Amino acid sequence: MLDLTDLQTYLSFESISTSTQHKGICQATAKWLAKYLAGMGVKTRVIPTKGNSIVYGELGGDPAKKTILVYGHYDVQPAEPINEWQVDPWGGAIKNGAIWGRGSSDNKGQFWCQVLAIKEAMAKKVEIPVNLKLVVEGEEEVGSTQMETFIRQHKKLLKSDIVWIADGSATTQGAPTIDAGLRGCLNGCLTLRGPKKDLHSGSYGGAVANPVNTLATVLSKLADPAGIVKIPGFYRTVKPISPSAKRVMKGEGWSKAEFLRVTGAKALAGEAGYSTQERVGLRPTLQVTGITGGYSGEGFKNIVPKEAVAKLNFRLVAGQDWREIAKLTEQYMAKIIPSEVAWEWEIDNGNDAYLADPDSFVIRVAREVLTKAFGKKTVVRFEGASLPVTNYFAEMITSQVLLSGWAGEMHGVDENLSLAAIERGVSAVAAFWQAIA
Amino acid sequence: MLDLTDLQTYLSFESISTSTQHKGICQATAKWLAKYLAGMGVKTRVIPTKGNSIVYGELGGDPAKKTILVYGHYDVQPAEPINEWQVDPWGGAIKNGAIWGRGSSDNKGQFWCQVLAIKEAMAKKVEIPVNLKLVVEGEEEVGSTQMETFIRQHKKLLKSDIVWIADGSATTQGAPTIDAGLRGCLNGCLTLRGPKKDLHSGSYGGAVANPVNTLATVLSKLADPAGIVKIPGFYRTVKPISPSAKRVMKGEGWSKAEFLRVTGAKALAGEAGYSTQERVGLRPTLQVTGITGGYSGEGFKNIVPKEAVAKLNFRLVAGQDWREIAKLTEQYMAKIIPSEVAWEWEIDNGNDAYLADPDSFVIRVAREVLTKAFGKKTVVRFEGASLPVTNYFAEMITSQVLLSGWAGEMHGVDENLSLAAIERGVSAVAAFWQAIA
Repeated sequence: MLDLTDLQTYLSFESISTSTQHKGICQATAKWLAKYLAGMGVKTRVIPTKGNSIVYGELGGDPAKKTILVYGHYDVQPAEPINEWQVDPWGGAIKNGAIWGRGSSDNKGQFWCQVLAIKEAMAKKVEIPVNLKLVVEGEEEVGSTQMETFIRQHKKLLKSDIVWIADGSATTQGAPTIDAGLRGCLNGCLTLRGPKKDLHSGSYGGAVANPVNTLATVLSKLADPAGIVKIPGFYRTVKPISPSAKRVMKGEGWSKAEFLRVTGAKALAGEAGYSTQERVGLRPTLQVTGITGGYSGEGFKNIVPKEAVAKLNFRLVAGQDWREIAKLTEQYMAKIIPSEVAWEWEIDNGNDAYLADPDSFVIRVAREVLTKAFGKKTVVRFEGASLPVTNYFAEMITSQVLLSGWAGEMHGVDENLSLAAIERGVSAVAAFWQAIA
Repeated sequence: MLDLTDLQTYLSFESISTSTQHKGICQATAKWLAKYLAGMGVKTRVIPTKGNSIVYGELGGDPAKKTILVYGHYDVQPAEPINEWQVDPWGGAIKNGAIWGRGSSDNKGQFWCQVLAIKEAMAKKVEIPVNLKLVVEGEEEVGSTQMETFIRQHKKLLKSDIVWIADGSATTQGAPTIDAGLRGCLNGCLTLRGPKKDLHSGSYGGAVANPVNTLATVLSKLADPAGIVKIPGFYRTVKPISPSAKRVMKGEGWSKAEFLRVTGAKALAGEAGYSTQERVGLRPTLQVTGITGGYSGEGFKNIVPKEAVAKLNFRLVAGQDWREIAKLTEQYMAKIIPSEVAWEWEIDNGNDAYLADPDSFVIRVAREVLTKAFGKKTVVRFEGASLPVTNYFAEMITSQVLLSGWAGEMHGVDENLSLAAIERGVSAVAAFWQAIA
């Protein structure tokens, strides 16, 4: 029988990082967690940052043993809309075989499997065969803004053989997952400016460049309808998809019907010659995430608009350097944007892709351990989204990053984690220590 | 010395057609004008419509004489921002050689030249050598929504040899103008729909069609960067620019520097082989007047948007049928929009171009008369905007439509009309009667 009283306390903290009025609660959560870990015998510190503090803990320091750094986060999403919850989002109710509340899956509950595994080993006086480092941040839900600096400043402290980011979710069928890759990202904004003010489209249309028409043409030259990016040099450094990655993806049990149901798309689309999983996980893409220009209210306003803006989101893959892509994009824009139109290309942020060998020792071990603990075949995936903290760890601490998860639905109402997943998670953690040691 | 007391009364009516709370004032204005014209001896009626009433008047009915129908409107633009006016917008102040107030140029003051010409002839007992029909509507500023129906229902009543729409403005140098052409218009809205909701661009980007990317490509296929419309059949019926039109435009005194100053455009743009005046006045064009899709707030939202919308405004020229263009556009869209994306093309409104022969008898006479009365060479232009009422008259009453004007700045604050322009206008009206009779 699991004792989740302390997790219930942990869940009761409204540690919402996106809300400035919850700053104090976030700091209190960090303090509570540090005190709790210290009480367990973990050597603990609360390390301040420019944002919410980071809780750091160490257990064991035997140079003969391998060191696993476990990453988690104590901050959570807001609970709104609160009246749609069946339970108090901050109550940690246990019913129907699950623990309920904001953070129960993401990431307090999932992280608690690490805590419980340590407690169990200590209670049973079983030796933990690895050294453990715990890093629990408080800004994951707002983009881990402090982590790059934190890791750079504490490289020595964080030195480890393996970094385990246990913050992912199980499949809808309840199978645990490992992400063997994440795409990189580049966000930028392209603004085109035409006449100094909106002009009458009757009196001027056809005699001045229209920045919305021009933007459409520019965007069509950046990527074609199949999704092929047309920026010269864009694919030059892209690594081909490895045979092992292809093999892994075939075993993933992907369903076309499920994909179409979830997206509501009329049909599959994308680069010819690649499967949907490859298109999403291992091929780069350019998405226009927002466009605006001229009049978009009711009815019509017959103008030649003065301005048009597009927000561009590149997803990049292994081999691509986001700074180089930003530069190539700018160079190409300079070529294709007609001189009648003034323009500006502003980069907002970027990060490179993360790609692991799905046959690496760490992933093989984790896959076996998770499959055994959960009684379901672990799904190894190549995720199309980005998680910059992975890159920071991979670049500054160790290339042996393990991204795995067994959480349920994360950001919606009625977030919960089944007691079975917690029990299985605890045994997976202990089994991983043994197997990797 | 002009007596403008009655015009001052006419200007005092706040006959703002765009404001529903001024409906009563508009009706009162119509009644006042009808009573005034009747008092002059004009056979007058107030004809109700679904909107504001139309004032109709007749003077003379000699079948041996030509009949001129004069069109004007008693409704005006709002006066806002009122505190920026130097005078009371409803006061009809006479100072600095001009009469000031909303409607002083557009169109109460300019129409008053017709009234004064009639009064002067009557006072001097000079025979008016033509029959006159006066049509003064009350919805010009909101698109003359009642005029098509009104003209269709009163074809017989309105039968005339010439329709004179005296509602244009003088050039900035004070020369009177004649519009020998107006472009037609077609407004439609294209909506593309992709996934059923915004998707995560990381997890889905590259594997589903993005309606914003798709819209950009579709728009780029509708018109190229030089402004050439690429819809098959679009130019098939376009009439070539006549030698007389080319000759007239050369004499117009157009200035590149002035054009760039007014528009603030970096450079001239448009179809090769045509002058700026030709591009605007006598060549068709497709302007995207508004575009929207995805996220356009601060920062970034990394989504594959579910929808993208573009508002399209075609300007059409003689020979093009707006209904046919709407159909050709839809047929072409059906070909170029990929099947992964759902779409809708909604037509809002359209009208054909109006084109007169600048060497026609009516225009030649009017040019001479105006040049003489104003002491400045009349500018004959091809205007790129649309004025649907012209088409209604041209199609249902007579092809001899004369579009001319000598008003000052129209829709801004401190609207005024110089007393000289009124005096010259009055003598131009009388001279036109004589010359055309």
